[in-house]
Amino acid sequence: MEAVALFPDGPELRVIETDTPSPDDGEALIRTLAVGIDGSDRRIAAGEIGGDVPEGDDHLIIGHEAVGVVEDANGTELTDGEIVTPLVRRPVDEGSRFARNGELDMAPPGTFHERGIMGMHGYMAEYFTSEPEYLVSVPESRAAYGFFVEPTSILEKSLDQTFTARSAFDWRPESAFVFGNGNLGLLALARLETGEEFARTYCLGRRDRPDRTIDFIETVGGTYVDSREVSVADFTAEHAPADYVFETTGYPKHAVDAVHALAPNGVATVQGIPGGSASFDIDCGELHSELVVSNKALLGVVNSRKPHFEAAAEWLAEVPESVLDSLVTGRYGLDGLEEAFADSPETLKSVVAFDREVN
Amino acid sequence: MEAVALFPDGPELRVIETDTPSPDDGEALIRTLAVGIDGSDRRIAAGEIGGDVPEGDDHLIIGHEAVGVVEDANGTELTDGEIVTPLVRRPVDEGSRFARNGELDMAPPGTFHERGIMGMHGYMAEYFTSEPEYLVSVPESRAAYGFFVEPTSILEKSLDQTFTARSAFDWRPESAFVFGNGNLGLLALARLETGEEFARTYCLGRRDRPDRTIDFIETVGGTYVDSREVSVADFTAEHAPADYVFETTGYPKHAVDAVHALAPNGVATVQGIPGGSASFDIDCGELHSELVVSNKALLGVVNSRKPHFEAAAEWLAEVPESVLDSLVTGRYGLDGLEEAFADSPETLKSVVAFDREVN
Repeated sequence: MEAVALFPDGPELRVIETDTPSPDDGEALIRTLAVGIDGSDRRIAAGEIGGDVPEGDDHLIIGHEAVGVVEDANGTELTDGEIVTPLVRRPVDEGSRFARNGELDMAPPGTFHERGIMGMHGYMAEYFTSEPEYLVSVPESRAAYGFFVEPTSILEKSLDQTFTARSAFDWRPESAFVFGNGNLGLLALARLETGEEFARTYCLGRRDRPDRTIDFIETVGGTYVDSREVSVADFTAEHAPADYVFETTGYPKHAVDAVHALAPNGVATVQGIPGGSASFDIDCGELHSELVVSNKALLGVVNSRKPHFEAAAEWLAEVPESVLDSLVTGRYGLDGLEEAFADSPETLKSVVAFDREVN
Repeated sequence: MEAVALFPDGPELRVIETDTPSPDDGEALIRTLAVGIDGSDRRIAAGEIGGDVPEGDDHLIIGHEAVGVVEDANGTELTDGEIVTPLVRRPVDEGSRFARNGELDMAPPGTFHERGIMGMHGYMAEYFTSEPEYLVSVPESRAAYGFFVEPTSILEKSLDQTFTARSAFDWRPESAFVFGNGNLGLLALARLETGEEFARTYCLGRRDRPDRTIDFIETVGGTYVDSREVSVADFTAEHAPADYVFETTGYPKHAVDAVHALAPNGVATVQGIPGGSASFDIDCGELHSELVVSNKALLGVVNSRKPHFEAAAEWLAEVPESVLDSLVTGRYGLDGLEEAFADSPETLKSVVAFDREVN
């Protein structure tokens, strides 16, 4: 089969010809339909993060946002022909309590692989294998968009952590503020706008009109906030302070900015991973006081687990297909890999398609 | 009756003679036994924080850590002779949902008074009145230490918020790290050491031996960490990283330091309120990454509510009296007010006693 592999020396991304994997006992064989590309994939391809090859290999098959069809259930609980999307993490030690509990998203660094990211081959290949416990059903009507389940699941985990944290009292949030209008930010905004949790949504960017991200924000019903015109510090004065902030850019100062943008009792979650050290002059007196006096919370969120994937798949089934479609700005075959990994202001979600019928 | 009042012009603390309050319908009259003094009281006395006088008054009766005995239940559900401790906050608007829910600790700034701190007379007087919903029973055996319920309730709220937040997964914390060896820090350490939540406790200070705070830390079973020898950044290397940090100093950089001291999935709560702006050069890249990659949480915690007072009163009944006694370094009458408010390395908890029999 063909697969997209990162060779860390270089680094170089190449289409390789490799053996179609054969499922072990307890694993199914999945025929890949499509794989989404996100910011992490581009950073992996550039050698900035991740990219650790599996032991004994000289390359890593990349891709972690995938949708596929069960080609061979191989005696598992799955059904041939079922549409599925795979989770990302796998345990180093199958017996660890995080593996047994299905909470690998909370496992400490070093105790897991991330398929397509580090230590274990990913999904940008014609076929992959997986245990059924790491697969989630995708409704057939959304087979062409199933790669959105993984990024949406990050927001679902953030909401899970946020609402669980605030269940210690009668929290009544009204507004959600997404930092960043990249593909995760826009997907999150669409999920938050169509969900029941918040009455109003905002999305932070730094683009001039006309711009397709601003159009998307306004089409789904959100309010665009231009960070060049309204600083995060001024946001609470210009608009209302936000009950919930979902940070997607990884811009290092945003963890602090997010606290300032919050209303009393608000929660900010950060998901992006900055590129490295980055020092800023921070008024820690103000940060500390605001956290305390207004009972604010700042949560780091990484990865997600099965219930978050399931919630994401459920949302995918409900959201109008047109919303999902307007986020996909390019579907490429393996012959278009370079374009697929290129990024521009016009790029929202690029997808590598393995099945011309569905895509 | 006699009371201790702050006159903001000055500012000056004076013993005044004032009318004994008479309870309105639905209120009880409480005879004060003793009132603890904490760092906030000293800052109020110095005119640094709070101190807003009730409307129409020229002074504020201070004191918010009190224990008293019901002198006149006045037809309420209370019993004459019952030992009680009062909550701090009262609503500006009785009908607000935070008041109705008993969650004034989560009410936004400006919607509540704090008795003895801002806008409403406190408890450092021979008598005070209160509605029973703002009073919590103290076991008679602990009448002499009932003023510890309020500060302990802050830790109980922190634990409530922390364990609620982490109930989103199977969290198994082992170690707790208290920042600060002032009276709240030591009280918190004693509570954490005698509680079931954590197997190991640490307490951060900057004192040389021999020192009574270090003695206290070691007597209750904690490990003293000298911040001059082990920076918070090095703490995780020297000891194990902490699953829970309880910050009590209000040192502005500690909100950031606390995140670095945490183990994966750990929670830090900050309670202290810094004196104002204080800028530091912060590696936001590292802060942001650590939050995300290790699923860490930073929570601001202010004030507390009735269930937290009840949990604190329950702990007070269980902890050996000797532990509480060794925290009280001075009991003063109104003639010793100046000494009571003085602070020194030998001062742990100073108390103004109104009842010579109990105290």
